[in-house]
Amino acid sequence: MTGAEVLVHTLVQNGVDVCFANPGTSEMHFVSALDRIDGMRCVLGLFEGVVTGAADGYYRMTQRPAATLLHLGPGLANGLANLHNAKKARSGIVNIVGDHATAHLGLNAPLTSDVEAVAAPMSNWVHTIPSVETVAGDCMEAVRRASGRPAEIATLILPADKAWSAGAAVPAAPRPAAAGVPPPDSSALAAAVDALRHRASSTLLLLGGRAVHADAADWAGRIAAATGCAVMSEFYVPRQQRGRGRFPVSRLPYSVDAATAALARFDHIILVEAADPVAFFAYPGKPGRLSAPGSRIIGLSGPEHDAQEVLRALAEGVGATRGAVPAPDGNIPAAGADQPLDAASIAAVLAACIPEQAIVVDEAISTGRNFDRATQGAAPHDWLTNMGGAIGYGLPVAVGAAIGAPGRKVIALEGDGSAMYTPQALWTMVRESLDVTVVVFANRSYQILHGELANVGAGAPGARAIDMLTLDRPVLDWVFLARGMGMAATRACSARELDRQLRAALASGGPSLIEVCL
Amino acid sequence: MTGAEVLVHTLVQNGVDVCFANPGTSEMHFVSALDRIDGMRCVLGLFEGVVTGAADGYYRMTQRPAATLLHLGPGLANGLANLHNAKKARSGIVNIVGDHATAHLGLNAPLTSDVEAVAAPMSNWVHTIPSVETVAGDCMEAVRRASGRPAEIATLILPADKAWSAGAAVPAAPRPAAAGVPPPDSSALAAAVDALRHRASSTLLLLGGRAVHADAADWAGRIAAATGCAVMSEFYVPRQQRGRGRFPVSRLPYSVDAATAALARFDHIILVEAADPVAFFAYPGKPGRLSAPGSRIIGLSGPEHDAQEVLRALAEGVGATRGAVPAPDGNIPAAGADQPLDAASIAAVLAACIPEQAIVVDEAISTGRNFDRATQGAAPHDWLTNMGGAIGYGLPVAVGAAIGAPGRKVIALEGDGSAMYTPQALWTMVRESLDVTVVVFANRSYQILHGELANVGAGAPGARAIDMLTLDRPVLDWVFLARGMGMAATRACSARELDRQLRAALASGGPSLIEVCL
Repeated sequence: MTGAEVLVHTLVQNGVDVCFANPGTSEMHFVSALDRIDGMRCVLGLFEGVVTGAADGYYRMTQRPAATLLHLGPGLANGLANLHNAKKARSGIVNIVGDHATAHLGLNAPLTSDVEAVAAPMSNWVHTIPSVETVAGDCMEAVRRASGRPAEIATLILPADKAWSAGAAVPAAPRPAAAGVPPPDSSALAAAVDALRHRASSTLLLLGGRAVHADAADWAGRIAAATGCAVMSEFYVPRQQRGRGRFPVSRLPYSVDAATAALARFDHIILVEAADPVAFFAYPGKPGRLSAPGSRIIGLSGPEHDAQEVLRALAEGVGATRGAVPAPDGNIPAAGADQPLDAASIAAVLAACIPEQAIVVDEAISTGRNFDRATQGAAPHDWLTNMGGAIGYGLPVAVGAAIGAPGRKVIALEGDGSAMYTPQALWTMVRESLDVTVVVFANRSYQILHGELANVGAGAPGARAIDMLTLDRPVLDWVFLARGMGMAATRACSARELDRQLRAALASGGPSLIEVCL
Repeated sequence: MTGAEVLVHTLVQNGVDVCFANPGTSEMHFVSALDRIDGMRCVLGLFEGVVTGAADGYYRMTQRPAATLLHLGPGLANGLANLHNAKKARSGIVNIVGDHATAHLGLNAPLTSDVEAVAAPMSNWVHTIPSVETVAGDCMEAVRRASGRPAEIATLILPADKAWSAGAAVPAAPRPAAAGVPPPDSSALAAAVDALRHRASSTLLLLGGRAVHADAADWAGRIAAATGCAVMSEFYVPRQQRGRGRFPVSRLPYSVDAATAALARFDHIILVEAADPVAFFAYPGKPGRLSAPGSRIIGLSGPEHDAQEVLRALAEGVGATRGAVPAPDGNIPAAGADQPLDAASIAAVLAACIPEQAIVVDEAISTGRNFDRATQGAAPHDWLTNMGGAIGYGLPVAVGAAIGAPGRKVIALEGDGSAMYTPQALWTMVRESLDVTVVVFANRSYQILHGELANVGAGAPGARAIDMLTLDRPVLDWVFLARGMGMAATRACSARELDRQLRAALASGGPSLIEVCL
């Protein structure tokens, strides 16, 4: 059996049965092995950022790693930005990166690069397979790391000669055991209980990571109901389960001024899989840390813990284990479709249209800033945001989310600027017949940068600066772009059209795109 | 004056007056400075691979560096693949990469990454500006390195606080002096002369880099005419000046078998800015080095030398300084337009249509394998190929070549697979009204990989392997894709249509795209 065959067998036997791929010559033995080994679903992306972003979305929905298949250093480099996002989201991924045969590396052929060095900044673990004999063991270690808690970006570099050489048999190893979950730190738990018992009105429970999954957030809701503390989530979360019947957790605002204002009244902040809040960017004369000076930060649990268990223990500590979870009444903003087309009416249309158990992938940037509150009463759904800030995350993550959660509808909310970083994802959606509706908000600018230009104190922009932030020359036509990749597409120029087109797209069951003219 | 203003001033004063940019928040002070400082042409790309590839193309045509403006580690990462190609082409580029303000880095905000580590694998030099006082000096050093011989990829990281702080005045420094060019190595020159005098019929003069510029290659032609030696170029060259009236230098074949056959009869190979020939990839049972075993390799000159001077000295050594340069008679393949549409008829149409002084950017991959000979008699033109092998190079390089050589027509030859890596370049072509004609060869597959699958000994592909190499589900519609980015586009389904559409596109003076249905 070749090393490539051993690798595919080992992945499948260890539960990694989806591979997002953009292969080249050095990966042909892996591709060939797919013909002879059952159980691996291989999904082609036309650009590597699609591949790595899809693996991120897949992990977020399944809590299991997918594999990627990437071609040498430059192919890996094209996938780094979405690996950055996945790493910040603590998604587990097994990257398989082909490299030249070891003897060929010394010849400095054109595609030669230091693959380990390319991988390192956006990986938690990098390993070059040294021998065909170690393929199975090295692969199992990568899967173990990518499946751990916290999960890791595990990058396994496979030199071509290790792929094509005959190797050892696949070991009949059991799947790697899940790592044990440590209990919450007892002194942090005691401090959190103390704050909630005595200073609940000035205490914030700040949730991140898996603490905004419904089973965990419901405990936070009981704690809030019993103690009167506030509950918020970080601005970015990997997957928030929200909507009608669930405890509503509002996001910390993005802007420094709004976030510091929101946090000003809290002298205690209890972090549950969240970080001490910091500004996304630094601005002259503004703070980097967002909490009130002198406030006490209690780090209750991190990604290595079980957030649901931690919050249940906290609820026990404050006597809040009974009672219904406070949940929105299901009211949603009225009559979005009757209003002029703007952020508010779009949010209302969304809230009315989000189907039960939908997955919303949010890269709407400036247009989507206020979707949070408006959609809290929508049908129960999952909401995914970009943890790493590298744009081009949304369409690829939608691909992976759809493959990870078959039977659920995916809505990808995109700015036109951000969608242009990885538009190739549309093609994979069509190829795989994914139930994804892409909504592109076409404001024809890097709108967020107009605000940022002022925020950083760079003054009023002149003609040349504005030119760098404006995408209207030429106008991007998303209907043509989608059709160019085989996707049905429409254009909505009023809230009523958006409402009608969104309902039709969601009902169609196949992928489609709506360009919203702003 | 802010650090950002000092930086823009210093770039312009040192002759760097084009900046390919995809900025974010941390680069807003640089963008703002453009309003107040004249002399910098800033060209927006919607994806960073467009930005870095354009800087490569610009250098190839001007032999002067452009700047890039990139947003933090992930933005730089998106540009790495084309920086890899530029580095292998020895193009000089000054990358300006914004980073968080230094005090902000410790807070681990979402976009935080190790920017130096991201830059290192694809840069020759990486430097983080430590203080606003050093901005001018650090910038001059970057320009000096990017302008040197050999030129370097110089990456300058600008923390946001160094951009927004008030800094020193711009020094009234002269432009950096060009580095001195060393003379050719006398013993290598003597060995080369000796081989040409005594064994010319089994001696190959292998040209790369600037040795295939016309002024250098003409000397090689005189040497060949006088001695009877053979002359070839490396398979990939940054810019070959060729066509009617110029000495024809054929490319070394791509495939290992064809290349070893082509080199078998040479017991001496004289390298002029070329490398000892190696296979692009390793294949089981095939050699990595392509020259005949036991042949003597004479490294006559490298990128630090002046190839024209080296070849002139060699011509003097063999007494070949007089006489006309042997040049093709201008015959081109007849009647391409009358033939069925295939690689041969396409090559014939191209040969007939290439305008005087056109720039051909070749990323045609499998379809373009035989364009070399067919176009040797076309009107004089430059031919640019991919030195690093990372696909997605062609459309961005065409952007930069057009900006670097105004008044000349650019033809970008693209495979459909390769064009999908950086399609965003079409938008920049329209925005800048560039005189570029894009020809996409739509074979609807990664055709090269079908051959590679066999070459690596992976056997006949089955259904799953073929599926990973095939792009026909869905079909990419390049007419729609181009129109989606505001570009005029047509489809050619016969050689006659291609001939007519190519002539019309070239005459139009503006950017357009032709999809060739294969």
